[in-house]
Amino acid sequence: MTLKIYADRMSQPSRAVIIFCKANRIHFEEIKIDLARRQQMSPEFREINPMGKVPAITDGKFKLFESHAILIYLACAFPGIADHWYPADLFKRAKIHSVLDWHHSNLRQGAAGYVFNSILAPAFGLPVSPKAAAEAEKVLSSSLSIIESFWLKGSGRFLVGSTQPSIADLSLVCEIMQLELVDEKDRMRILSPHKKVLQWMEDTKNATRPHFEDAHTLLFKLKDRFQKQRSLAEDLKTNAGKIGNSKL
Amino acid sequence: MTLKIYADRMSQPSRAVIIFCKANRIHFEEIKIDLARRQQMSPEFREINPMGKVPAITDGKFKLFESHAILIYLACAFPGIADHWYPADLFKRAKIHSVLDWHHSNLRQGAAGYVFNSILAPAFGLPVSPKAAAEAEKVLSSSLSIIESFWLKGSGRFLVGSTQPSIADLSLVCEIMQLELVDEKDRMRILSPHKKVLQWMEDTKNATRPHFEDAHTLLFKLKDRFQKQRSLAEDLKTNAGKIGNSKL
Repeated sequence: MTLKIYADRMSQPSRAVIIFCKANRIHFEEIKIDLARRQQMSPEFREINPMGKVPAITDGKFKLFESHAILIYLACAFPGIADHWYPADLFKRAKIHSVLDWHHSNLRQGAAGYVFNSILAPAFGLPVSPKAAAEAEKVLSSSLSIIESFWLKGSGRFLVGSTQPSIADLSLVCEIMQLELVDEKDRMRILSPHKKVLQWMEDTKNATRPHFEDAHTLLFKLKDRFQKQRSLAEDLKTNAGKIGNSKL
Repeated sequence: MTLKIYADRMSQPSRAVIIFCKANRIHFEEIKIDLARRQQMSPEFREINPMGKVPAITDGKFKLFESHAILIYLACAFPGIADHWYPADLFKRAKIHSVLDWHHSNLRQGAAGYVFNSILAPAFGLPVSPKAAAEAEKVLSSSLSIIESFWLKGSGRFLVGSTQPSIADLSLVCEIMQLELVDEKDRMRILSPHKKVLQWMEDTKNATRPHFEDAHTLLFKLKDRFQKQRSLAEDLKTNAGKIGNSKL
């Protein structure tokens, strides 16, 4: 019975699941579902997840989707997972559920909405939407403030006052990492007011190295590509300006 | 140590938590947080839930918000809760988590968005938005189709093929009940194509009677008030038409 993870490392919840498995030495087979090629809509993948979304897993005959549900399943189904990832303690576990639920309607809406409407939309045949991006940015900034002032309150370095990371830290930090794709000045404008968030992201990366960086290699490559495109567009604009001026 | 539930029965997740406790004979004190009076933003309530949302609970010194997290906590913390509400079986439990996670980004977005933009917005000082309502209706109808064809697949009468209700059934059915507030012809236009959904709602009500109906009394009262307002507006329109005609 081999665990199969159907994922695209461009997807933030896919990366969270992969990092969790690597960090916990859970053996798995990774099956790439290329979102840019719309492989998530193929009949074969929809047999695994009829919603056409990654990540999804199969563990023998058992199929599961929704990344939070997957992380909880993995933390419970495989032996030897350290308790801090998904604490057995009723109260600690309840707080993990609370932050994961909060993630859905807050940070995820903000971060995914901002990145999609700022830069990813054209890859899906849609125009970028500055208006939708601005609305998502409000949700994102508000969510980051709440992480800073509430979820990272307490003596621990991780969410809900923990001294070691849980599945919630992994899930939320991977979400914020998606901002690597946008223009660096926009990313820093959004993130830099939140010093505790930045430190917590570093702590989560460090706690899961080298798997965290490995799982993000593809994202960093795309970041470089977008950065080059932006520089090229900037150069063209400058040169067009010079030509325009020389004509005057 | 008394369980306190901070709730407004106009809120669908508040009702789910109240019904769960009543159906499972969990003793609690209900503290009304009146959303129409914006009591959720009071400093006192924000000590309980800094997000300013209902429901929230306190169990002794322990505070918790997010209704799914609350339902899971209650199912685990109190003795004698029948297993079907939140199965101990790893695979069954994972499916419950999956449907609860799916709820956040699908049915909730659709149903809450549709009801708010169709009828509730004025109560919060905002205009109704037919465009936003139409967009939310698409998400809602798609979500109902997925419940019909996927989550209610299998031999059981409840979600993920269960023969008895879980916290997910309660949570999702309470969400759909919010449609009681909109015009009956709109409600039926949206719901009637989904026969299995309608039957499942009845089954969930029956499995939790009389608590389900009790918890919805306030919603039904508001439904009546909205219906009367609509009839009055219709009458005024007809009479204005008659006066207009008699003047010609």
